[in-house]
Amino acid sequence: MNAGEIIGVDLGGTKMLLGVVDPDSKVLWESREASTGQTEDELVELLVREIEEARGKCPGVAAVGLGIPATVDHDKGIARSAVNLPMENLPIREIAGERTGLPIVVDNDANVAALAEHLYGAAKGTRNAVMLTIGTGIGGGLILNGEVYRGATGAGAELGHTVIEVDGPPCQGNCPGRGCVETLASGTALGREGREAAEREPKSALGAMLAAGETIDGKAVTEAALGGDETARGVFDLVGSRLGVALTSFANIFEPEVFVIGGGVIAAGDLLLDPARRELAARALPPMKQIPVVAAELGSDAGMIGAAAMARIELERDAG
Amino acid sequence: MNAGEIIGVDLGGTKMLLGVVDPDSKVLWESREASTGQTEDELVELLVREIEEARGKCPGVAAVGLGIPATVDHDKGIARSAVNLPMENLPIREIAGERTGLPIVVDNDANVAALAEHLYGAAKGTRNAVMLTIGTGIGGGLILNGEVYRGATGAGAELGHTVIEVDGPPCQGNCPGRGCVETLASGTALGREGREAAEREPKSALGAMLAAGETIDGKAVTEAALGGDETARGVFDLVGSRLGVALTSFANIFEPEVFVIGGGVIAAGDLLLDPARRELAARALPPMKQIPVVAAELGSDAGMIGAAAMARIELERDAG
Repeated sequence: MNAGEIIGVDLGGTKMLLGVVDPDSKVLWESREASTGQTEDELVELLVREIEEARGKCPGVAAVGLGIPATVDHDKGIARSAVNLPMENLPIREIAGERTGLPIVVDNDANVAALAEHLYGAAKGTRNAVMLTIGTGIGGGLILNGEVYRGATGAGAELGHTVIEVDGPPCQGNCPGRGCVETLASGTALGREGREAAEREPKSALGAMLAAGETIDGKAVTEAALGGDETARGVFDLVGSRLGVALTSFANIFEPEVFVIGGGVIAAGDLLLDPARRELAARALPPMKQIPVVAAELGSDAGMIGAAAMARIELERDAG
Repeated sequence: MNAGEIIGVDLGGTKMLLGVVDPDSKVLWESREASTGQTEDELVELLVREIEEARGKCPGVAAVGLGIPATVDHDKGIARSAVNLPMENLPIREIAGERTGLPIVVDNDANVAALAEHLYGAAKGTRNAVMLTIGTGIGGGLILNGEVYRGATGAGAELGHTVIEVDGPPCQGNCPGRGCVETLASGTALGREGREAAEREPKSALGAMLAAGETIDGKAVTEAALGGDETARGVFDLVGSRLGVALTSFANIFEPEVFVIGGGVIAAGDLLLDPARRELAARALPPMKQIPVVAAELGSDAGMIGAAAMARIELERDAG
């Protein structure tokens, strides 16, 4: 069976990206809507509205794949707990399925991004790959023995909530942990460390941006670093080395063939990845030192394309 | 095909345990030899000698399963790198196979212990389980989707080398890392923290043991703690809470159905596990807070029985 056109949705903490994807992973139509500051009900309304709009353009749509930055009960289609979105125990598959009449497949956003990179991108041809999606938070996706690994109910692969500092600062959002790599090496951490560095070094380009009233967030630190500012580069060195400590743990745990790093922060490229590679080479057990750390290839479309691919795989499997 | 009697070997950092195991996992004959301080060549000689002695007692032996505390190339049967044994890139399957004429299956010691607990012990009936074997070091074994997970070449599942303290102390043996849970929560760590506590608290039972010239190692701290000494219990609280931080990471990463803790240190039982459970409940993401943390059931035989079971599974699979 060929499932034809499928809607893939990447429902992120700041925006919802929705696309109609054909069997060759070509995006036929797409929309982008802001998701910041919306309630759970408003997010559901937005989702249903956008699905219906997409069906208006592509009436042959057979199903919806939904990637959410939350611990997900994959089998039941429930968004159990999200760190950066107002969702708790939301039976999103049932609700969206009833409202649209379409089969809905729900998965963690980083799982589907990892699937997309595995099928079409930087992890193509591997059987074991670890993907991190670094933006507001850090999402994790695992391809183990050729398949997405989700844990007992689908709540696993929360790689951003791996502790790298036992007595570290409290984590973000609703994570009760401390010292998680998410709070020390995400885009949010990049902005926080960037602000501190800008205050410490008023003569740097980053300091000048702060003095000019600019918002020092991850994007601003990236701009300054790409422009050659040593202070901003120092921030990437700090954050990238923390990322490398987490990769060291993942290398020793998984012995993957590749690490794929995506999300907004990868705009900095090797400014982020080089310090991470350095820590990995210095700290991992000998057989794991040389595991490549590469940038994701599918960019901001990975979640959307992967969500559609996940729905396609499950539909075709269920159909035998 | 039924592979009949199989020799299981648990080649540890201090002793080599070898047993002839029947298809019902019953141990028909066993031997125990010291392995401390031996060279790589001497360890190979010891292994071959003990295999031949076992065959003298049970001539029907069909194969040997070998569990080694090393990163292992499972497919090639090579012990690549051991933290607490003098082995490096040793083609042990080939060497022992040529010397004995028997098929040899080589795996990481904690992988086979996890397999044994999965087949016969505390993780029976689960599809996803994480096992830690805490002794001189900390070994890791993963059962994911019902099978032992080893990584790309079999060097993975080194859970003891998960970093919990970014700027922590250098790790043990040949691990180039810092702040690994192995160096902060192993039996070795228990002894080290115990000696410091004994010096700090000379009036405690632990302090009295030190004053009497006793060696304060993990075993001594366990004895004192089981006898009610608050200072020794404080050491378990510290080490157990660090263990719980690592379990928090593994809970968020794997969402397993159970954590199984084995190895010599588990003699302390809930003195070790309760602080670990407390940290897990306080720090893990909501769906993962309640994952049970239980003691291994097969005791010191787990590695030997699991090594035999591993060899049996692979022989029967290869025979179709």
